[in-house]
Amino acid sequence: MIVILKPNAATESIVELKAALRKKGLQIHESQGKTTTILGLVGDTAALSEDQLLTYEAVECVKRIREPYKLANKNVHPKPTVVEVCGQKIGGGHFQVIAGPCSIESEEQITEVAKDVKASGAGLLRGGAFKPRTSPYAFQGLHENGLALLLEAKRATGLPVVTEIMSTSHLGLFDDVDVIQVGTRNMQNFELLKELGKLDKPILLKRGMANTLDELLMSAEYIMAGGNERVILCERGIRTFETSTRNTLDISAIPMLKKKTHLPVLVDPSHAAGLRFMVEPLSMAAIAAGADGLMIEVHNNPSQALCDGPQSLTPPMFDDLMKKIRETVRFFGMQ
Amino acid sequence: MIVILKPNAATESIVELKAALRKKGLQIHESQGKTTTILGLVGDTAALSEDQLLTYEAVECVKRIREPYKLANKNVHPKPTVVEVCGQKIGGGHFQVIAGPCSIESEEQITEVAKDVKASGAGLLRGGAFKPRTSPYAFQGLHENGLALLLEAKRATGLPVVTEIMSTSHLGLFDDVDVIQVGTRNMQNFELLKELGKLDKPILLKRGMANTLDELLMSAEYIMAGGNERVILCERGIRTFETSTRNTLDISAIPMLKKKTHLPVLVDPSHAAGLRFMVEPLSMAAIAAGADGLMIEVHNNPSQALCDGPQSLTPPMFDDLMKKIRETVRFFGMQ
Amino acid sequence: MIVILKPNAATESIVELKAALRKKGLQIHESQGKTTTILGLVGDTAALSEDQLLTYEAVECVKRIREPYKLANKNVHPKPTVVEVCGQKIGGGHFQVIAGPCSIESEEQITEVAKDVKASGAGLLRGGAFKPRTSPYAFQGLHENGLALLLEAKRATGLPVVTEIMSTSHLGLFDDVDVIQVGTRNMQNFELLKELGKLDKPILLKRGMANTLDELLMSAEYIMAGGNERVILCERGIRTFETSTRNTLDISAIPMLKKKTHLPVLVDPSHAAGLRFMVEPLSMAAIAAGADGLMIEVHNNPSQALCDGPQSLTPPMFDDLMKKIRETVRFFGMQ
Amino acid sequence: MIVILKPNAATESIVELKAALRKKGLQIHESQGKTTTILGLVGDTAALSEDQLLTYEAVECVKRIREPYKLANKNVHPKPTVVEVCGQKIGGGHFQVIAGPCSIESEEQITEVAKDVKASGAGLLRGGAFKPRTSPYAFQGLHENGLALLLEAKRATGLPVVTEIMSTSHLGLFDDVDVIQVGTRNMQNFELLKELGKLDKPILLKRGMANTLDELLMSAEYIMAGGNERVILCERGIRTFETSTRNTLDISAIPMLKKKTHLPVLVDPSHAAGLRFMVEPLSMAAIAAGADGLMIEVHNNPSQALCDGPQSLTPPMFDDLMKKIRETVRFFGMQ
Repeated sequence: MIVILKPNAATESIVELKAALRKKGLQIHESQGKTTTILGLVGDTAALSEDQLLTYEAVECVKRIREPYKLANKNVHPKPTVVEVCGQKIGGGHFQVIAGPCSIESEEQITEVAKDVKASGAGLLRGGAFKPRTSPYAFQGLHENGLALLLEAKRATGLPVVTEIMSTSHLGLFDDVDVIQVGTRNMQNFELLKELGKLDKPILLKRGMANTLDELLMSAEYIMAGGNERVILCERGIRTFETSTRNTLDISAIPMLKKKTHLPVLVDPSHAAGLRFMVEPLSMAAIAAGADGLMIEVHNNPSQALCDGPQSLTPPMFDDLMKKIRETVRFFGMQ
Repeated sequence: MIVILKPNAATESIVELKAALRKKGLQIHESQGKTTTILGLVGDTAALSEDQLLTYEAVECVKRIREPYKLANKNVHPKPTVVEVCGQKIGGGHFQVIAGPCSIESEEQITEVAKDVKASGAGLLRGGAFKPRTSPYAFQGLHENGLALLLEAKRATGLPVVTEIMSTSHLGLFDDVDVIQVGTRNMQNFELLKELGKLDKPILLKRGMANTLDELLMSAEYIMAGGNERVILCERGIRTFETSTRNTLDISAIPMLKKKTHLPVLVDPSHAAGLRFMVEPLSMAAIAAGADGLMIEVHNNPSQALCDGPQSLTPPMFDDLMKKIRETVRFFGMQ
Repeated sequence: MIVILKPNAATESIVELKAALRKKGLQIHESQGKTTTILGLVGDTAALSEDQLLTYEAVECVKRIREPYKLANKNVHPKPTVVEVCGQKIGGGHFQVIAGPCSIESEEQITEVAKDVKASGAGLLRGGAFKPRTSPYAFQGLHENGLALLLEAKRATGLPVVTEIMSTSHLGLFDDVDVIQVGTRNMQNFELLKELGKLDKPILLKRGMANTLDELLMSAEYIMAGGNERVILCERGIRTFETSTRNTLDISAIPMLKKKTHLPVLVDPSHAAGLRFMVEPLSMAAIAAGADGLMIEVHNNPSQALCDGPQSLTPPMFDDLMKKIRETVRFFGMQ
Repeated sequence: MIVILKPNAATESIVELKAALRKKGLQIHESQGKTTTILGLVGDTAALSEDQLLTYEAVECVKRIREPYKLANKNVHPKPTVVEVCGQKIGGGHFQVIAGPCSIESEEQITEVAKDVKASGAGLLRGGAFKPRTSPYAFQGLHENGLALLLEAKRATGLPVVTEIMSTSHLGLFDDVDVIQVGTRNMQNFELLKELGKLDKPILLKRGMANTLDELLMSAEYIMAGGNERVILCERGIRTFETSTRNTLDISAIPMLKKKTHLPVLVDPSHAAGLRFMVEPLSMAAIAAGADGLMIEVHNNPSQALCDGPQSLTPPMFDDLMKKIRETVRFFGMQ
């Protein structure tokens, strides 16, 4: 970390600053230029915040040179992480498709969709039992019953299952779930992240609608710092001024995350655009940009879906898409 | 709610749509124009989502005419809500200042600041015991011990206290807290909101960094739908492309919320800008725009603050500001 | 257009509104529901603004059903437009790469780059003579001399040339330019657009950094309404809160524009991210999402470039990329 | 400017970088820390772009310490600039209200409004003759005739006039205009700014919808660098994700600009929100935050207005508002 001092900083304020930095165990390398004095800080600066340094009278500005995340950092761990879920590999050249309905509605619905997406080649089954809905009057999911139905669909098809958690108090219900998803609204629910860090189970961490990539990686770091390093990141669209799509898929997030971290990166084209006709082109773009997998909404009867119908594919549409996905994945050199 | 049909919609798809709408208990008023057929829906449309209607083949577009929030709606409850906390009134012409440090650090710190802000005229004391920090390596708050110190400061000064909750699992620790704050990152932590709806205690609900005003009101509705109607809203800056301030204070949110809802609206100028010199002009602007109160960070030693130092005022600065606040509040006809 | 009246609108205010609408030559189809009265307007509503209707006392809200653009509208002109430039086709399955330096710096530089990109397979040469720079102290381009050098490079290689115009007063200098580019900062310089509408020359219209897709199409409409229908659209990244890339490439813009308009859509991956290593993955994503071409910055000596060096490829890098582009274009069924 | 080198930068790449910097006339102050080498650049770094430095192999990152604007910089010119227009002062404690219709529609309309706003206490008259409209089919203004009517209204009332220019080719028509306005869509129309820099006439420069404050100041710098230092800045709302207001008024821009520059800062509450009921609270907020003036839309018949009716006040509404503005301006110590 580089601390640039004010040109006219009082000597005593500089002395105070240096004492405080040394107290934090940091070494200071000072360099006095003609107009500017710079302090280079050596040591563990990950816990040091730019904000805190700015409170010192003597400080003009601060520049972080090393990233504040360690465990998620590609510099520290250059080899891509491959997350394995019941034999299915994600990352490091292994591409996976997670498919299923937005919410679990009935045994028939989830089992039927599970069989269909398996037949089409999906590697994991998704389905929501706890649904974060903007309105308290909207369908909130089947909760425990939903999880039970999801596990039944798992038994019927052998597909590992992914489902969202909304509160630490529900953790006990997720024992048999294969991958726990943290939704976009909970990306910075730090108490939840800390609890998930204690588990021995992959976590699918979705980017918050208005969070930067560095914030996403810091949230991954929360989970990893607890001991659970099996984190899968997921880009699902960010909030911008554009209104013709529900969110704006940040396609650049894929190469940028691949540069910053060794963790696998998925893309959710269904939530990004919120429109069915966009699922195919955005899926193709995600593969082309280097994603490690896709998360796609499939419903056997979209117009009866209790949530997110307009973006769901029917099983035949998904089957067609999977053929294209397989060819495109192969074209871009993944398996 | 108005549903506009596609010009070339097939008769059977229209029949299917109407049957589904009637099944939801809605009355349909159809009007056939020369080029467009429109269905007006009468009944409880709050639970109906635009998205769901769009999945029907026959639907071109949907327009909601009534707001999806009911309990928070000013049309339903035109008189401004006055929230009372240990005798301090907020809303309906009663202006309040909540002041204190970002985080509680020691008995000495919190008690000293509490005495100072009381002497300057603050009505409530704030202080964080559970801190949502972007980095897992940053100071996370004193937790239970922090709450104990805050309650001690309350006993020492008589000021009611406001502090943030981060998880439903901590609820038991908040029994003696006067106002529970929901932070910006948890505005859509719906499981937490539902639990807070069961309490008999005012809730200070901060707007999410990237949430619209309608989403803020829907989150208030979650709390109110549970039975707890004592919700105080707080604008604290939104995320935009501008980088010279930490966030962009959405000053228009005040008159707009005042038009939409009867709930009191506070402004947090400290977090909005993240810069000390802006606290005064933004406080003045908030009063002028019609806010019901302010939430201001005060620290007895900002450069030693464990978080958010650059935006904290010292007690003497706060004392000066309070004089201006009092005069300005009076000038604009509040008390 | 649908106009929804206030439930309690006074009869005289309704009469006033209807008279005004009829005066504009519109037919009114009224439908009175139980709680809501709706007016359906038939006729040329493109010139009617929602804003204007909202000023009438009686109006609750307005919903536009047909898009406000006509000439750019796919509904009106379903076949994709193919723009031809000196024999090079863009659109309708014809993929083109436009390559060259951000700014023209010397005869040697532009001619050398032109030969290199032609050898690698680029179809058009780009190079800026008038440069819109944030700072008045930064290099502003070689102006007339730059255009002369660009035309020399055209003669040397046979490549048609694309270059940016910044003012109507420079129009006379652009006679021999093959495609005139409107930059992101001038997308709503309507006086310039009107002048370009009078030319018989293709216009490359870049999306404004903070403009919606509908606004982009309305700007295209300005050019087309003047009689020049050879407009090529270009997505080049929008402004968001994310700071790790210069802008956020809106990949969804490609399928969305393809749905709304018949005009060809290019992508500029160099400006979108502002980072060299991203040019390849974003180029692949653009092709996969259905773009009709790419615009890529190539410089023979990026670290000496007078602008935008960090995002420029060297000729050998571009040569490698072109091989991948050709294969990928073929894979996705274009030529 | 501080240049931080890569830890493992090759000696020859460092030599190349230093040679290039010296060639630009900059002095280099090098400091070698344990892990990081830093170059401090002394000299005229305003023309140096961060981007350009990043193209050098050896460079890790760059930090600008001094702002890139000079003439607009408060450090260089600490006393607030007072712009005088026909005896009316703006800035340095002098508060002004500019009022009038969005567009000039007829002699009667503009003269009537001019008399009304003068009677209520406005200091300048606004009215648009060239209107930047999103749609080519919308009313584009009365052009020359509009300017003639505006000047007639000036003669009738003695009010100096402010009106927008959209193209350098219209400059000849603006000789008798007192203040030329640059609209939000032209803030980075650099060719126009350069021409305005040659005039001896105040320029009202509106912030672009998606431009940072530093970019606004760089655009002011374009005008000032040409010799015209009478620039008045105007905040008019930025583009964000919030949809309940047309734009989001960035109230923090006022204190931030006041810190960065000596130029006067106005606020346009009419365009910011696009809603009549917000004009008063936003005007109050602007005064409270330290603005030097307001720009307010007034129309004698808003529902017949050819543009922006929903945000226009009627003359009686404006008269009421002016009473409050005068008292509030006095309360906050301005005249």
